Amino acid sequence: MNYKMIGRFIGHILLVEAVFMLPALAISLFCKEDKSSRAFLLSLCIILVVAAVLLLLGKGCRKGFQAREGLVCVGISWIVMSVLGCMPFYLSSEIPNYIDALFETVSGFTTTGASILANVEELSKGTLYWRSFTHWLGGMGVLVFVLAIGTVSDRSNGFTMHLLRAESPGPKVGKLVPKMKETAKILYLIYILLTIINVVFLLIGKMPLFDAVCTAFGTAGTGGFGIKSDSIAGYSPYIQNVCTVFMLLFGINFSCYYMLLIRQFCSVWHDEELRLYLGVVFFSIVAITLNLKGFYNTLGETIRHAAFQVASIVTTTGFATTDFDLWPTFSKTILLGLMAIGACAGSTGGGFKCARVLLIAKILRRNVRQVLNPHKVQVVRVNNFMIEEKVLENTNAYLAAYVIILFVSFILVSADRFSVTTNFTAVLSCFNNIGPGLEGVGPVCSYGAFSWFSKLVLILDMLAGRLEIFPILILFSKSTWRRY
Amino acid sequence: MNYKMIGRFIGHILLVEAVFMLPALAISLFCKEDKSSRAFLLSLCIILVVAAVLLLLGKGCRKGFQAREGLVCVGISWIVMSVLGCMPFYLSSEIPNYIDALFETVSGFTTTGASILANVEELSKGTLYWRSFTHWLGGMGVLVFVLAIGTVSDRSNGFTMHLLRAESPGPKVGKLVPKMKETAKILYLIYILLTIINVVFLLIGKMPLFDAVCTAFGTAGTGGFGIKSDSIAGYSPYIQNVCTVFMLLFGINFSCYYMLLIRQFCSVWHDEELRLYLGVVFFSIVAITLNLKGFYNTLGETIRHAAFQVASIVTTTGFATTDFDLWPTFSKTILLGLMAIGACAGSTGGGFKCARVLLIAKILRRNVRQVLNPHKVQVVRVNNFMIEEKVLENTNAYLAAYVIILFVSFILVSADRFSVTTNFTAVLSCFNNIGPGLEGVGPVCSYGAFSWFSKLVLILDMLAGRLEIFPILILFSKSTWRRY
Repeated sequence: MNYKMIGRFIGHILLVEAVFMLPALAISLFCKEDKSSRAFLLSLCIILVVAAVLLLLGKGCRKGFQAREGLVCVGISWIVMSVLGCMPFYLSSEIPNYIDALFETVSGFTTTGASILANVEELSKGTLYWRSFTHWLGGMGVLVFVLAIGTVSDRSNGFTMHLLRAESPGPKVGKLVPKMKETAKILYLIYILLTIINVVFLLIGKMPLFDAVCTAFGTAGTGGFGIKSDSIAGYSPYIQNVCTVFMLLFGINFSCYYMLLIRQFCSVWHDEELRLYLGVVFFSIVAITLNLKGFYNTLGETIRHAAFQVASIVTTTGFATTDFDLWPTFSKTILLGLMAIGACAGSTGGGFKCARVLLIAKILRRNVRQVLNPHKVQVVRVNNFMIEEKVLENTNAYLAAYVIILFVSFILVSADRFSVTTNFTAVLSCFNNIGPGLEGVGPVCSYGAFSWFSKLVLILDMLAGRLEIFPILILFSKSTWRRY
Repeated sequence: MNYKMIGRFIGHILLVEAVFMLPALAISLFCKEDKSSRAFLLSLCIILVVAAVLLLLGKGCRKGFQAREGLVCVGISWIVMSVLGCMPFYLSSEIPNYIDALFETVSGFTTTGASILANVEELSKGTLYWRSFTHWLGGMGVLVFVLAIGTVSDRSNGFTMHLLRAESPGPKVGKLVPKMKETAKILYLIYILLTIINVVFLLIGKMPLFDAVCTAFGTAGTGGFGIKSDSIAGYSPYIQNVCTVFMLLFGINFSCYYMLLIRQFCSVWHDEELRLYLGVVFFSIVAITLNLKGFYNTLGETIRHAAFQVASIVTTTGFATTDFDLWPTFSKTILLGLMAIGACAGSTGGGFKCARVLLIAKILRRNVRQVLNPHKVQVVRVNNFMIEEKVLENTNAYLAAYVIILFVSFILVSADRFSVTTNFTAVLSCFNNIGPGLEGVGPVCSYGAFSWFSKLVLILDMLAGRLEIFPILILFSKSTWRRY
């Protein structure tokens, strides 16, 4: 294992993290929040010291880098980033328990949005900003950012490929352009542009600037941390609808936007994953609206709430405009289904991903056909491209890992004596990076009541979910740490 | 599709069903139960008429038979068997609703043991016998029986292989001896022998003969229909312990017993699936016993209840000695986990099967290793034998189908407005052929309150679970019915 180089790389990431903490510090200073200003300053110092040590130790490292080192690098850097990124919460005593602060930060970076706080409105402005900003940074991925700005441009293209593959969501990474660095740049440009448009639309709805920026961060990263205790419920219907639309937009594969930019409208129109995604959203909204008949005053209100909650859950954002835990079981079950499906691959959303659902369904169809006609060779095609067997194998392995992790976490968390539904939806929600679940972790509740052990399990679930399992899974594999 | 031959085959199966209905008729006549005697007579007539028609229509059929015809044959024959097998319940008005009667019969044949009856003690003796006997017949499989007695011996070995493969549980069918017919005979002999030993042990505990036979049927088939409203709770601790042991024995791959008979002790001792199964059982009992501290009066009582419930759930039997829905969440969650794992392949138990859990875990481990060392070819071995890629592919497809069916059924059943846990455990329990779930379908409740639509969904789940999905799944595939 090339530890020196991994250390160097993490050093770079910490520098980026430190730079991104500066606006939060500025806001704290501007609002004259003494405690959080001091906390941000102290955190910055700690992060910079650690970064400096790592960069110095890693000086003159070998350049060789293998697949497993890429994965290990991603896994560890996210953990280090969270362990240090939670310092402002902890040092300002706004979240006095370290595990809680870590939970909140991991929940932020992984764009989960699950909170241990009972009342977020007590937080200082600077902390609120940082909390929401972790979503934005985690949404597209900090490693992708590091690639985009090119501080590691001296490495080979193969290395960046390993990293991007490990951090980007979906069964396979679509290179938009031949160079990974350019791809990373394009992705971030689209991301920034969409976020700005989102802020503008929110400002038009007379949302205060601070609220608009924080809400846009939560929407863009499909995170879901709100800055109000009632999430988005207190804002106007216009703002809620803007959020609905932008949540859905950020759940779409970013390569679709790139295709639109280079005028390949046809390939967007025929994109099977996009069709599945929009189809699932449409049918869920219709089904829930029908099921909620008489629940709200008008049909318009029902559709608005149904659409918002569907968009929020399927994109794994986790904002809420109503307590959907009070909805009838059928609607709640549809939401649970959406939790597991998740958004499109290559978006900022989490979950199992529509692309994988599509692949799994096609693999199953092929298997049925093979049973019926054992002598005919069958291939799996998506968007008319033949999918390699390797990708299918990985998708199958992903499903296996997904089910096993869900299963084991569910049993571990159940030691806390909450209800079965609470435990199950807590795990489902954290693992798919959503935020709220049902019953004890419903949209009006928090994760604060769980034991530290359960919180650690959920922290690992959130990381595994965001990094698509393998970068976290291999940290627990003996063969990763074996010399060769 | 060779419809004539499928018809002929189903005719044979119905003849077997009719013969097996005779003891129930005899019991009804002996106990002077007029209504059920008439119902059995009438049912017998109907079954014989249908069988005769099918046999006549199928006369002089082509002998050719393909894989898909084998699967279709299995799927349809189980449906026909249930549709006609529920006649005694319906015609005697002991279950006046036809869907309910069908549910009860499918639950019997598939060895699920989920009941729509609030009080089974109201049933006549003949009906109770038939209800329990469906478990015994469904446990090993009626097609296997037909093969064993050799009424279709004129067909090729390939055909019997297709059938046995479709009806027998597990990722691959282990031929015990080269001829399928001999294998089927050996399986049934072991099955009958173990059942008789079970009855003897129950009789030693002073259980009445009728109770002992019915309970042994439920145990042997890992079904779970009791003949008392409180299942096994009212019997002595000795009888409960006998049930625990025999449930566990019937959850073991029958090829292990064959190996013991031919003195290959070593291969039984090293059998990885058996070790996993016993390990899971042991750790579950220990964990639940620790979790239930203070729940029962003595440690002995706690262990007895824990062991009974673990054995009952992991083997997918579904008997109960206590209302485990009142247990702490951790214990309940372990039981939910056991529901999904299930018994060994090649046993009468249902569920996902330990063999598949083992394979999925090994596939995942291989995948992780391949990510770490992309250039090394890795194979999956079980019991030191290399597993073919085809089997691994099928296992992956099985997992995909399993998850999708669970998911879709859960959403469909949720229209009934019961709690999330009730719906989920109802589907989990029926699909894995267990019987009781939690909350609304807990061990002291029944499935009677579900709508006819949900009952139909659960009926399909039970059939899909028992026949390992594909024979039922392909009935819904267009390509099955296409001419070629």
